[in-house]
Amino acid sequence: MTGQEGGAPRKWESTARVEAISDGLFAVALTLLVLDIKVPHAVGPGAALSRQIWALLPHLGLYAASFLVVGFYWVAHTLVFGTIERSDRWLLWINLLYLLPVAFLPFATQLLAEYPQHRSATMFYGADVFLVGLMQFALWVYAVRGRRLIPAEAEPGPLRAGTRRLALMPLSSLAGVFLALLSPPLSLAVFVLTPLVYIVTGKPHGVAGRKLPRPRG
Amino acid sequence: MTGQEGGAPRKWESTARVEAISDGLFAVALTLLVLDIKVPHAVGPGAALSRQIWALLPHLGLYAASFLVVGFYWVAHTLVFGTIERSDRWLLWINLLYLLPVAFLPFATQLLAEYPQHRSATMFYGADVFLVGLMQFALWVYAVRGRRLIPAEAEPGPLRAGTRRLALMPLSSLAGVFLALLSPPLSLAVFVLTPLVYIVTGKPHGVAGRKLPRPRG
Amino acid sequence: MTGQEGGAPRKWESTARVEAISDGLFAVALTLLVLDIKVPHAVGPGAALSRQIWALLPHLGLYAASFLVVGFYWVAHTLVFGTIERSDRWLLWINLLYLLPVAFLPFATQLLAEYPQHRSATMFYGADVFLVGLMQFALWVYAVRGRRLIPAEAEPGPLRAGTRRLALMPLSSLAGVFLALLSPPLSLAVFVLTPLVYIVTGKPHGVAGRKLPRPRG
Amino acid sequence: MTGQEGGAPRKWESTARVEAISDGLFAVALTLLVLDIKVPHAVGPGAALSRQIWALLPHLGLYAASFLVVGFYWVAHTLVFGTIERSDRWLLWINLLYLLPVAFLPFATQLLAEYPQHRSATMFYGADVFLVGLMQFALWVYAVRGRRLIPAEAEPGPLRAGTRRLALMPLSSLAGVFLALLSPPLSLAVFVLTPLVYIVTGKPHGVAGRKLPRPRG
Repeated sequence: MTGQEGGAPRKWESTARVEAISDGLFAVALTLLVLDIKVPHAVGPGAALSRQIWALLPHLGLYAASFLVVGFYWVAHTLVFGTIERSDRWLLWINLLYLLPVAFLPFATQLLAEYPQHRSATMFYGADVFLVGLMQFALWVYAVRGRRLIPAEAEPGPLRAGTRRLALMPLSSLAGVFLALLSPPLSLAVFVLTPLVYIVTGKPHGVAGRKLPRPRG
Repeated sequence: MTGQEGGAPRKWESTARVEAISDGLFAVALTLLVLDIKVPHAVGPGAALSRQIWALLPHLGLYAASFLVVGFYWVAHTLVFGTIERSDRWLLWINLLYLLPVAFLPFATQLLAEYPQHRSATMFYGADVFLVGLMQFALWVYAVRGRRLIPAEAEPGPLRAGTRRLALMPLSSLAGVFLALLSPPLSLAVFVLTPLVYIVTGKPHGVAGRKLPRPRG
Repeated sequence: MTGQEGGAPRKWESTARVEAISDGLFAVALTLLVLDIKVPHAVGPGAALSRQIWALLPHLGLYAASFLVVGFYWVAHTLVFGTIERSDRWLLWINLLYLLPVAFLPFATQLLAEYPQHRSATMFYGADVFLVGLMQFALWVYAVRGRRLIPAEAEPGPLRAGTRRLALMPLSSLAGVFLALLSPPLSLAVFVLTPLVYIVTGKPHGVAGRKLPRPRG
Repeated sequence: MTGQEGGAPRKWESTARVEAISDGLFAVALTLLVLDIKVPHAVGPGAALSRQIWALLPHLGLYAASFLVVGFYWVAHTLVFGTIERSDRWLLWINLLYLLPVAFLPFATQLLAEYPQHRSATMFYGADVFLVGLMQFALWVYAVRGRRLIPAEAEPGPLRAGTRRLALMPLSSLAGVFLALLSPPLSLAVFVLTPLVYIVTGKPHGVAGRKLPRPRG
């Protein structure tokens, strides 16, 4: 299982800590997204506050959408590491290069929230999402190639399907970045719809060719 | 146990990462709640500072109460996942939709702390708590229905009890939201009392019909 | 081991999530402590910045000391949960009531850093530390009493020693709070020295009467 | 394996919580680095925003570099704890003294980002990085000496190599601090290049003399 002759995996081969720092960073990034929303100040009577809260709603919607985009990458990371069963030093580094643009997502979202109609804000956001997708793809390819860090018995069909699906993510973000030159709102739609398409059409890449039987209930 | 014929659970079926990101997000949210409290500035002699700290106390009380409300949902999440023993992609997404309103709770609390007498602040807080309760209920129903993600041998009695108890949470929050139209303070009391009632009357849903014998001491 | 007849511990009895949320909250609190330090602004030539950084040093020292006080409680929490091997709903709640004053420590530290000479800032800090120590003591007593959540075979001697040592923490903080009425600096010394005394004189409460043999090297 | 006669490791000997709080603190520190970047305000037409974003790029580059420096220490921590298999109270404390300068890194980075040309900002950053490296070295020496907390069967060759490599880190940072007296940019180059050299030339210290065979693929 671990490439050793019958031995248990060594502690430093475990993926526990890569997954732990990733979960931690995602948790902080997801909460910080919302931290940027400021409570309205200098409010008069109750009606004024309620009007201000209503005025915040599109803003809140954008943060909720960004939360789901970040959440989507977390889900994908989970599925990728559902297949990866060992770690090595290079995987740690590829994962850090993946977490770097993830850590920039709250900033990119804030930029977008403040300048939703500006092309350059959309492009910055898209470029960041593109880097996340690209490094995610790199994580997968590095781990899967030659079955370096995945179970030796994994079947090739689902692995190839996973590769194709993960390649789609950065390609579609890249298209979104260029689309921003024509129309920022259309570009935003691409960033939000890509995950949706991925989710609806997807099967977990974790399944190595066998379908998990539904528990008898 | 895992729906496979005698095999160990696969890595991507584990609930470890859903629980990890939830614990991380709750930990950040709980700490950010308190981060909003500002140190009083421009203080003269010692007596003035002590007066200002006393003046902060109701404020601190509100944050402490909100800490316990958020903490209550964490405890409930723990109990729900004490029964759930496998994960799948949809569970990850339902859990993200549950974490989204949790991440908004620090903002909602700050809004409430700044405008405790305003109806719309109370309603916003209540609506957020309602969404948390609703998604918690959805998590439970999704996992339990047809014993999808729980042990096949779970007894139906305690599961039904858990369903009833978890349905109470969003219903009572919804009542609290409408109550805010009549009286914001009464509405706040509902948000704080619901968890209390739940705690005092509750048994862990984790217990699948059997009582855990007290360790002999 | 778990109070069940030969069975493995059930998932909802595990202490994994109480420990996870505690580690997460401590990690955020420790980092937020430092977040309060502001970069000096409006600086002229290089010499001026270096003078400003030197001027920050006592400030940084206070944050470092507070980091170690918070860290001390984390170490103590680790040792307490090194003995506790099962969780239940009440333990989750006692632990939340323990985390509440921990989450207030960055605020209390910031207050102290801004008003180091003010009695009320010292008392606020001390009262918060007292609550942390008190709830820590409650955690221990709840788990140990009747060997509720600890191994049945734990020897009474070390448990009693642990109880005595953990009782010392809140008592000494309480003394520090009252000492602040006479002398804030003396009071601060108590808050810092208590952990030190505890550390230097201590044995882990985890050891149930047997000493761990040093690995042969 | 654990220094006990055939017994399983006791819970309080586990390294799980030291690793958890470290991963948590690193995750928060990595995200806070980026949090310091402020969205440009008071922007006119789209072209102006895009110019401001371009102007931010060197700034973003500095944060990315700092992210990788912090990430480097996280990777090194992972490798050190890949060898350490037991914990004790002193290890917890040495690790806290290691996390203390890690928690200061966002502040040091912000200082550097605001005053990149100032010698004292570079020295402060370097001194902080030096302390991180020094405590990392202390962690390793404490655990390895007499095989205190590592497997008894670890071979001496790779351990000595690990000691030499980990000693290099604080020495090179110290050199960087003094170099800042001559040239701040040269000094910065040392802080960034040391990790790079370490990474490219390195083998995991986790490997106790045996090479892990590549899984057959």
